[in-house]
Amino acid sequence: MNGFLFVNAALASWNLGLRRADATLSALTDEQFHRQIAPGKNRVLYLVGHLTAVHDSMIPLLGLGDRLHPELDEPFIKQPDRAVDDIPTPGKLRQHWIEVNAALNTGLLTLAPAEWLQRHNAMTDEDYAKDPTRNKLAVLLSRTNHLSYHNGQIILAK
Amino acid sequence: MNGFLFVNAALASWNLGLRRADATLSALTDEQFHRQIAPGKNRVLYLVGHLTAVHDSMIPLLGLGDRLHPELDEPFIKQPDRAVDDIPTPGKLRQHWIEVNAALNTGLLTLAPAEWLQRHNAMTDEDYAKDPTRNKLAVLLSRTNHLSYHNGQIILAK
Repeated sequence: MNGFLFVNAALASWNLGLRRADATLSALTDEQFHRQIAPGKNRVLYLVGHLTAVHDSMIPLLGLGDRLHPELDEPFIKQPDRAVDDIPTPGKLRQHWIEVNAALNTGLLTLAPAEWLQRHNAMTDEDYAKDPTRNKLAVLLSRTNHLSYHNGQIILAK
Repeated sequence: MNGFLFVNAALASWNLGLRRADATLSALTDEQFHRQIAPGKNRVLYLVGHLTAVHDSMIPLLGLGDRLHPELDEPFIKQPDRAVDDIPTPGKLRQHWIEVNAALNTGLLTLAPAEWLQRHNAMTDEDYAKDPTRNKLAVLLSRTNHLSYHNGQIILAK
C-alpha cells in the first residue's frame, strides 16, 4: 500500500478546488464581490471571508503553526452576512485569501503519509482511540468539500 | 501505512455528501424541484438528474458493472437545462437517485484498498503508467467534490 498515492490524490483534489476558486475570484470585479449569490443569500464577499477564515483555522488544527487572521472568525464564521459592518474590502480579502492558502499549503507539504492518519488537534487522544477515522486526512477532505460547496455558489455571481 | 484508513476517510466523505443531498431533497417538495437555484440558473430538477447521471456513470468507470440509466445522459449531461422537454418527473428522479446511489455504494464496498489505486476504466494502461494519480480513488474524490458543488446550489432553492 502506497500512502503517498493516497495523500497525493487528496492533495490534488484540494488544490484543484483552490485553483477553481482562484479562477472564479479573478474573473469577478470588486464590485461583483458585493453581489448576492441568489436573492437574499450570502454575498460573494462574505463567502470569500468565510472560506479564508476556515482555511486559516486549518493551520493550527493540522498542527502546522499559528493562524494568520483570527480576526476573520467574528464577521465571517460566528456572524451571518451583513451582521457586521466593519469588514475588510474586496481588495484586502483577496490578499488574505492568497496569503492564507499559501501558508497553509506550505504546511500541508510537510506532512508525511503516516502523519495524515494522526488525530487532528481539536480532539483528545482518547477520542482518537475510539474513532481513528477522525484524522488530519479527514479534515482535509472535509474542507475540500466545504470549498467545493461554496465554489458552486460563488460561480452564480458571475 | 494502513490503506483501509485512507479509503475509509474517502468513503466517509462521499457518504456524508450523499446524506446531505438526501436531506436537502427530502426537504424539498416536488413543486420546489421546478425552482431555479438562482434567477436564470439551473432548476433543482436538472441538478438532481445531472448528479444521478454522473453517479450512474461511475459504476462502469470504476469497474463495478453496467450502469442503470444511460438514458439520463442526453437530457442531464449532454444538454443544458430546459433544452429537453421530455424529462422524468420529480417523483421518478427521486427513485432513480436512490436506486443509482444504492447500486453504486454496494459496488464501492467491494473494492479493496489496493484496487482504489488502480487505473479507472476510461484510461489505458499506458496513460496510467505516465500518471498513477489518475486512479479510482481520484474518481471518487472528484465526484465527491462535484456532489458538494451542486449541494451548495440545491440548498438555495429551500
